[in-house]
Amino acid sequence: MGILDGVKVIDFTHAYAGPFCSLNLADYGAEVIKVERIDGGDQARTWGPFKNEYSAYYASFNRGKKSITLDIASPEGKEIIFNLVKDADIVCSNFKAGTLEKYGIGYDDMKKIKPDIIYASISGFGTEGFLSKFAAYDNVIQAISGVMDVNGFPEKGPTKIGPAIGDSYSGLILYLGIFIAYYHRLRTGRGQKVDVTMLGSLYTLLEYPILEYTNKGNVISRTGNTSHYCAPADTYKVKDGYIALTVRNDAMWETFCKKMSLLPLLEEKDFQTNENRVANKQRLKEILLPIFAEKTMGEMEALFSDTDIPLSAVIDIVKSLEDPHLVARKMVIEVNDPVIGPLKLVGNPMKLSENQPILDIPSPTLGEHTSDILLSLGYTEDEIKQYKENKVV
Amino acid sequence: MGILDGVKVIDFTHAYAGPFCSLNLADYGAEVIKVERIDGGDQARTWGPFKNEYSAYYASFNRGKKSITLDIASPEGKEIIFNLVKDADIVCSNFKAGTLEKYGIGYDDMKKIKPDIIYASISGFGTEGFLSKFAAYDNVIQAISGVMDVNGFPEKGPTKIGPAIGDSYSGLILYLGIFIAYYHRLRTGRGQKVDVTMLGSLYTLLEYPILEYTNKGNVISRTGNTSHYCAPADTYKVKDGYIALTVRNDAMWETFCKKMSLLPLLEEKDFQTNENRVANKQRLKEILLPIFAEKTMGEMEALFSDTDIPLSAVIDIVKSLEDPHLVARKMVIEVNDPVIGPLKLVGNPMKLSENQPILDIPSPTLGEHTSDILLSLGYTEDEIKQYKENKVV
Repeated sequence: MGILDGVKVIDFTHAYAGPFCSLNLADYGAEVIKVERIDGGDQARTWGPFKNEYSAYYASFNRGKKSITLDIASPEGKEIIFNLVKDADIVCSNFKAGTLEKYGIGYDDMKKIKPDIIYASISGFGTEGFLSKFAAYDNVIQAISGVMDVNGFPEKGPTKIGPAIGDSYSGLILYLGIFIAYYHRLRTGRGQKVDVTMLGSLYTLLEYPILEYTNKGNVISRTGNTSHYCAPADTYKVKDGYIALTVRNDAMWETFCKKMSLLPLLEEKDFQTNENRVANKQRLKEILLPIFAEKTMGEMEALFSDTDIPLSAVIDIVKSLEDPHLVARKMVIEVNDPVIGPLKLVGNPMKLSENQPILDIPSPTLGEHTSDILLSLGYTEDEIKQYKENKVV
Repeated sequence: MGILDGVKVIDFTHAYAGPFCSLNLADYGAEVIKVERIDGGDQARTWGPFKNEYSAYYASFNRGKKSITLDIASPEGKEIIFNLVKDADIVCSNFKAGTLEKYGIGYDDMKKIKPDIIYASISGFGTEGFLSKFAAYDNVIQAISGVMDVNGFPEKGPTKIGPAIGDSYSGLILYLGIFIAYYHRLRTGRGQKVDVTMLGSLYTLLEYPILEYTNKGNVISRTGNTSHYCAPADTYKVKDGYIALTVRNDAMWETFCKKMSLLPLLEEKDFQTNENRVANKQRLKEILLPIFAEKTMGEMEALFSDTDIPLSAVIDIVKSLEDPHLVARKMVIEVNDPVIGPLKLVGNPMKLSENQPILDIPSPTLGEHTSDILLSLGYTEDEIKQYKENKVV
């Protein structure tokens, strides 16, 4: 039993951003009832990787939820939704703005059924502007938010951030909004609408470039692996891979030169202060590249292990699964999925001493809980049978 | 008055991740008392950009907080901290693991003073492994989490994500952990420890590569601006900049070819299904590059405005400040800072219909509230004067 035990969520989410939000609610014990289309359900059910012909992607983001299928366009389907909402606490969705409203199940409609409902939604762009009619695609949101312009190397052009950050970041922000709204309801008895855009969520990452431009007139664009604040701070090719390190201040610079047997560099005026090293970071890089190229990752780690200079090999997904820091934090869990079998998933990065997340309930098969949920709402076996024949559920 | 009015936070955070968390608490009305070193305070006060010799960076992440300076190593300073904690709800920090414990103000010490305190911290790597002794540097955490390996172009090597995502992401996750702990306390009366690592936070971004590797044996690394799921989905150079677009399915592909006057491509078997287009995305890209190069951003936007294909110019920080979507969402706010003057900052991406964030209180100058806070704790003017002389506060 989790801390959110007794909290009921009617979940219209699909793909990544929305399901990531409601996954976090389920992790802490909320009852999440996922409403899916009869013809295939959440589109993520068709996304790979597959195992035993079942989407591991879907299984990952829908752990611990229940699935009911229904036709939201039918009057009977809408009636079921209203019956679900009657004793729910939270409704969440991530369609493009206006989709649920079009079906007559927007916030104003649901408020009539359940006045204190929390109606939480993510959309790509919100309700304003010509893009508001479009579904949210992570790369387009990265482009229009300005994030793509500040990622990557100057010579390669704007670069998409690898992971779908627009989804995960907005999913977390919606989760936060739901918590604030839930606390507000506890205190006042009032529900509300929580409205998050993927665009706005990503824009919060640009605080620093905005400060530079609005205060100094500097347009900060992508600068590869280097830092605006200090040097050397970069990723270097070594014999057997790459390492990243940061020399934050002059004391660390001294340590760095001693460990790398580069004492003559300490004498160079161009490198004596952090300010000078930042100004001359390109020349510094050219000096360091061939020196790093002669080392291995292990040699570099050993060399700096007794210093205060943080340094790490750039690890890939294979190594990460065995990385002692990640293993120690239980960042990979295993769920026994009824279709897929043992399924490795990312763990929860939040460690609370009193509240343990529930991570071992697999995702539902399509419509797995349709009958159970309808029975609990008071529908009879006969009604359910007829609804199934009529493709209402 | 915000929804968190009456919630008191003793804030030991510095730099980015921690202050970003407590900023969000202040936005919703919590009283955030920032404890700073006497000799300069938060290191972010020395970080640019500067205006009127004051750090806009600090001003940005510490909006709406109070500042008290004290020497945490002195017995008197420690006593002040315990007096602060006595009627506080939340303590937060983002030192490397073990720092506050070393000064005798760790969770176990504070629990003795205030049994239901919520003690929330971010560290880079947690308490395990050889890196645990290091301060958290975003680039090193990106390297060791595996995130750096999946960002950028294959030919350029691992690429740091431009914005300091390890900070912002872990800051949000700590904020969430605090909300869960606060709700737990409301229900049970019990406090707890909330422990977040930047490393674990970033690892959650790698769900998809983990699924591919553990289910299919595929090692997913960086793939530039392309998508694993569909093609064409990329960023293209046009006459006056770059545009990003995604063609998600076969119907969109047909629309795309018609709009771009590329009807012969519809006949090519290599491109007829999404699966085929993904398999042949390199060849498709080579065909499309010279065609895009002849268009302008405006032409592309006009061409696709009546289709269901989302497309955006890659905007930079200058354009973002005037972007109609961002402006409509009030994603840039202005605070009247007493030192800097009018200061443009990022707005709040979370729009709640009942709870408005408080965004117009500037950041505190160093120790601005020291005397007021000490007086409120019952210290006399004389005691405060003596503490100041002795550099306790």
